Amino acid sequence: MNVTILTVGDEILIGQIVNTNAAWLSSSVASIGGIVVEHVTCGDDDEAIITELDRLSLISDAVLITGGLGPTHDDRTKDVLCRWYNDTLVEHEPTVRALEAMLARRGATLSDRNRGQALVPSTCIVIPNDLGTAPGMMFVGDGPLVVSMPGVPSEMKAMMLNHVLPDLRQRIEQQAMPTWEYRTLITTGITEAALADRLEPLDDIVGADTALAFLPSTQGVRLRMGARALHAAARQQMLDANEQRIRVRAGDGIVVASSDVPLSHEVVRRCREVDHTIAVAESCTGGMLGAALTAIPGSSAVFMGGMLTYSNASKVALLGVDANDIEEHGAVSDVVAKEMAQGARRALNTTWGIGITGVAGPDGGSDEKPVGTVWIALAGPIGVMARRYVFGLDRQINRERSVAAALGLLLKELS
Amino acid sequence: MNVTILTVGDEILIGQIVNTNAAWLSSSVASIGGIVVEHVTCGDDDEAIITELDRLSLISDAVLITGGLGPTHDDRTKDVLCRWYNDTLVEHEPTVRALEAMLARRGATLSDRNRGQALVPSTCIVIPNDLGTAPGMMFVGDGPLVVSMPGVPSEMKAMMLNHVLPDLRQRIEQQAMPTWEYRTLITTGITEAALADRLEPLDDIVGADTALAFLPSTQGVRLRMGARALHAAARQQMLDANEQRIRVRAGDGIVVASSDVPLSHEVVRRCREVDHTIAVAESCTGGMLGAALTAIPGSSAVFMGGMLTYSNASKVALLGVDANDIEEHGAVSDVVAKEMAQGARRALNTTWGIGITGVAGPDGGSDEKPVGTVWIALAGPIGVMARRYVFGLDRQINRERSVAAALGLLLKELS
Repeated sequence: MNVTILTVGDEILIGQIVNTNAAWLSSSVASIGGIVVEHVTCGDDDEAIITELDRLSLISDAVLITGGLGPTHDDRTKDVLCRWYNDTLVEHEPTVRALEAMLARRGATLSDRNRGQALVPSTCIVIPNDLGTAPGMMFVGDGPLVVSMPGVPSEMKAMMLNHVLPDLRQRIEQQAMPTWEYRTLITTGITEAALADRLEPLDDIVGADTALAFLPSTQGVRLRMGARALHAAARQQMLDANEQRIRVRAGDGIVVASSDVPLSHEVVRRCREVDHTIAVAESCTGGMLGAALTAIPGSSAVFMGGMLTYSNASKVALLGVDANDIEEHGAVSDVVAKEMAQGARRALNTTWGIGITGVAGPDGGSDEKPVGTVWIALAGPIGVMARRYVFGLDRQINRERSVAAALGLLLKELS
Repeated sequence: MNVTILTVGDEILIGQIVNTNAAWLSSSVASIGGIVVEHVTCGDDDEAIITELDRLSLISDAVLITGGLGPTHDDRTKDVLCRWYNDTLVEHEPTVRALEAMLARRGATLSDRNRGQALVPSTCIVIPNDLGTAPGMMFVGDGPLVVSMPGVPSEMKAMMLNHVLPDLRQRIEQQAMPTWEYRTLITTGITEAALADRLEPLDDIVGADTALAFLPSTQGVRLRMGARALHAAARQQMLDANEQRIRVRAGDGIVVASSDVPLSHEVVRRCREVDHTIAVAESCTGGMLGAALTAIPGSSAVFMGGMLTYSNASKVALLGVDANDIEEHGAVSDVVAKEMAQGARRALNTTWGIGITGVAGPDGGSDEKPVGTVWIALAGPIGVMARRYVFGLDRQINRERSVAAALGLLLKELS
């Protein structure tokens, strides 16, 4: 099943919002064996939407549309779909009642504007919106399946999970066609070109029903393997075989994980297995490491807490860092990073303490410690060690890479 | 100047990566007065790329392409562009020398695979890549301007800022056409429909050369105003007039900021103006509030640090929260939130202390305190106050909304 994703919204085209919906929809469709062949974004403009519908209907078995369903003048999608299908708007009674009930819970009554949300093209199947006011619409006709959903991510996701994906899954299963499945290997400490050279020759890894993509990122190169077969067991077998080939050719210590999950997820999982706990002391990352670890449900068994010690005074007061060491070596130094890691570990009585101190930029760099310089220390059963990194000039990227490096350091010790 | 953005990469179509490049490119193009009319993403597939090039060249003055320039077999963009322009690949000497110098700094020599990166179509203008190995390419011919850049965001951004944007800006200025400019108002505490009703009638706000869009988000509804004129001063005047109309009609306390910046940026800016400092005590957000504040360059003058107190023991040990209060009221309670805010403020001797404690989910909810329940406390010159929020069921969204709510609380006190 070839699926296209149409996002409607001026806010995307002027770059005010990142289109996370398209990525989420793609990954959902891929998870049930559908193939997304194109993403396209057009503005809140009747002719632009019509042009895309005309074009996409020729290359799609299903078109998933998000955006443009709100109650204001700049929301055009519903009217345009009505016109495209040569249909008329009618009031959908269950939606009126749902809107009344939702507003009653908030102590409000149905305004004319909100009542307008219950108008839908007469031939569509209405998809209930449990989290908002705009219902979704599904059109099952001669052409491709067309689904229109709100642009608010939480509302769109609930509609997909509860209504659209089950429907798509059934259609795909009825086709009984071979489908693609993917698995990603996370590597560390090697460049894309060097890794590609090691994996040669690729003839036995890449073929008509197997694929391999190289995805460079700030967290290291990821290798996405794909396998196509009718049955899940066969796909798993093909992926297992290719993973084995890649691990052997890449060499020791290169592939650190074999699932496409954040490094923080891997850290939490492994710590839970061996009953280890973590405390953090963050300076330049200001909470990003804690945020990454606590993003994982169940992290409370592993992550005890930590200190955000952005100022020098807070490093002394909260972590017991020696003020003389800051004076002598600077706040960005191996000595201070180690004391931070040890201070956090001691205060929270954990297996591991992680300390991060660096010059994130754009200011604060010197010849000796240019912007991008970060010291990361790890205290634990191994004693205490620290490593120096020199990243780039971008503040946010330096912070992200610091978090990834800290998690990578710990992951190696947990392997 | 009508611009289209073509992203090439299977990893986008299977949803493995969010397309942040398109948003960044859009916002860059909009900032110099260009109009982005479409985003499209296709796979690493020769025919798919050719089809898009054929189509986009008919509707664009400039096509910006990212992705598919790496050194591995799945990178197709360069070969396809060479074919589309009926050109041949030649070695670009300055790129060979730049690659050699870059590798020498890392103590490596030029491999055949990396030398291949220096092959470019003979008719293109080469754009140097200061941060990576794949050069960019610009094609200036009879059709639209076509620019091909790597997909790695940092490399793409450097090329845009240093080479492509200056070129585009010059072309746009030579046209001497009216351009659009945008400004966003951030509102809080009102639904999209209610806000739209208050702003009626829109005739004097929306016209041929002025626009208004409603953008609902977890941080509140944002209003994006647009104005089109030849000169910047005229655009500013039109935006000022519409901002004034909107502020009056929306009513007191609705519009909290008038720039499209994160709430954290506004908090740091206002605190700097009045020399206020902040400390945080985070439980369910695990560092996200600290991360949001420290994302802003210059935040070190405002953000002193804080404690990540994920476990109950850490709330007692690091913040001096009374263990009896946790026992009696629960960790998610107004009493504990207040003690957290006060504890952080006391330990770091700041103007403001912010405490966040909640049930982010998916587990841990009860009838009395369902998933999504969050208490946020603010301690400062006002004394101490706490507010209860009940968000939804999604862990990450609950955490984001908690951060936004905490920043909103402080912002109101700073206004």
